Amino acid sequence: MYRIGVDLGGTNIKAGIMDESYKILIKDSVPTGAERGFEAVVKDMAELVLNLMQRKSISEKDVIGVGIGSPGSIDPAKGVVTYSNNLDWNDAPLADELMKMLPFKVKVSNDANCATLGEVKAGAATNVDNVVLLTLGTGVGGGIVSEGKILEGGHAGGMELGHTMLLRGGAACTCGRKGCLEAYASATALIRQTKEAAKENPESKIHEICGNDLSKVNGKTAFLAAQMDDETGKKVVSEYIGYLGDGIVDFINVFRPDVVLLSGGICNEGKNLTDPVNEFVQKNCYATANNFIPKVVTAILGNDAGLIGAAALVD
Amino acid sequence: MYRIGVDLGGTNIKAGIMDESYKILIKDSVPTGAERGFEAVVKDMAELVLNLMQRKSISEKDVIGVGIGSPGSIDPAKGVVTYSNNLDWNDAPLADELMKMLPFKVKVSNDANCATLGEVKAGAATNVDNVVLLTLGTGVGGGIVSEGKILEGGHAGGMELGHTMLLRGGAACTCGRKGCLEAYASATALIRQTKEAAKENPESKIHEICGNDLSKVNGKTAFLAAQMDDETGKKVVSEYIGYLGDGIVDFINVFRPDVVLLSGGICNEGKNLTDPVNEFVQKNCYATANNFIPKVVTAILGNDAGLIGAAALVD
Repeated sequence: MYRIGVDLGGTNIKAGIMDESYKILIKDSVPTGAERGFEAVVKDMAELVLNLMQRKSISEKDVIGVGIGSPGSIDPAKGVVTYSNNLDWNDAPLADELMKMLPFKVKVSNDANCATLGEVKAGAATNVDNVVLLTLGTGVGGGIVSEGKILEGGHAGGMELGHTMLLRGGAACTCGRKGCLEAYASATALIRQTKEAAKENPESKIHEICGNDLSKVNGKTAFLAAQMDDETGKKVVSEYIGYLGDGIVDFINVFRPDVVLLSGGICNEGKNLTDPVNEFVQKNCYATANNFIPKVVTAILGNDAGLIGAAALVD
Repeated sequence: MYRIGVDLGGTNIKAGIMDESYKILIKDSVPTGAERGFEAVVKDMAELVLNLMQRKSISEKDVIGVGIGSPGSIDPAKGVVTYSNNLDWNDAPLADELMKMLPFKVKVSNDANCATLGEVKAGAATNVDNVVLLTLGTGVGGGIVSEGKILEGGHAGGMELGHTMLLRGGAACTCGRKGCLEAYASATALIRQTKEAAKENPESKIHEICGNDLSKVNGKTAFLAAQMDDETGKKVVSEYIGYLGDGIVDFINVFRPDVVLLSGGICNEGKNLTDPVNEFVQKNCYATANNFIPKVVTAILGNDAGLIGAAALVD
């Protein structure tokens, strides 16, 4: 039997067919073209799935179902995208519409939830039951797997792990509050922190690294400066580790998972990121002397995590 | 059939027998006497249960099982109290030991988890599947019910909802970090905030209310001053609502429950507390325009919540 996963993004619709051990047999993508409206996007999604099946000569009866990871707030019970800013969808009945075009069961969950489940099925948390994943990108997203299943929350709009307070009254967050984890631990935030520190420290190697053009600062710049023993770079990285570390401690104090996964571009730093984060977390969790403290590790599936997790939505 | 609940506290062991609709038929308590050691406490627990059964002429075969709500970090799968500061227990095999003395299935969970489940079974959240409860007392504790069941987390030491960051680097928390929700939204924190504001404002009616003795300030003082139109009192209450409100918004953004319950002494303020908290929450949750925002209401079972929830642990 085969499973089909769809990773619906603002830019592309990716789809893949997997065997039962979540090995991807074929995958492909088409542009989303969300501006064409909901029906056109769903139609392309169905055609992409059928095309992949045809190319691998897979017949309907051998497919368990189709899972979709979608951006935005999802009602998984109804298969509805209640709100997606990226797609400009409101209460879009994604599962029902796709089931009109495909002879399969269709399930929908949030893309970050799917990425978490993907890492559990075939990635950095294989055979682990309780996982917290944080994605450090433009924003901070994430997902929770509890007892082997995605924790969806009671209603659409949950699992917004980046929109939990870290420093009340602090940096403005995209959600309207001031001081959310996202405003301190996203790649966007790290870039802001790096630029601010560079401006205050004209002698910093950060200027050299970005060719004296601070608009070229990216998520790697501070780490690179720190490795060159630049004091400003070291301070930016150390403060960033503290922000991220406290966010992770919060989720450990609530979920006490087996492992915490980090994904997103900043994870390319590898142990330069995870070693100090683990040191911070080991010191700062609640009742450290008496309770299990999970390791923080980087996710390994990259862009395929969402596809694989989506394929795992259908039982 | 009957259910038996035990609420194990630092001061007293309470036990009660309930019918299947969680109506308490009889309850009683004995001093915990934790200083006598684990075995003596468990023996008293067993004797209290047998005594209640005898007084109501309830026989073994009519009892579904015994549930225990315990302070501290619990491993519910093993029925072990991994750590309790109040009881001075480490890895105490509570379920196994009690099962040696009683012919019933025994389940253990954290006391705040049990209080949450109690409100779901017979209190302010009856027939509701997804609940977040925060207790505002000496500290801030809480529990989550997800899809009708206690969310335990992967390991002992989870569900420490009070030990999530609110204002990084702020007020010292009992857990060792600075700025946890507990350090801003507990009754202890409100008392501190009230005292500090009174000291800075000699004209405030807070001085009058506490007989010019700030050591007599309690969790009601600022609310009372606010009702007397005292500017300092109004400011303290308004700031406290903001701290608590942001903590509640965090848990809504993660769990998006059907309802948020508040318990603890501060809840005696009733709508003076919940009305402004609801106003804050309605404004500040993630994607307010597009997603369900739960109401914040006070719990109703008081001290019986833990007993009832404990009785509901055994299926």
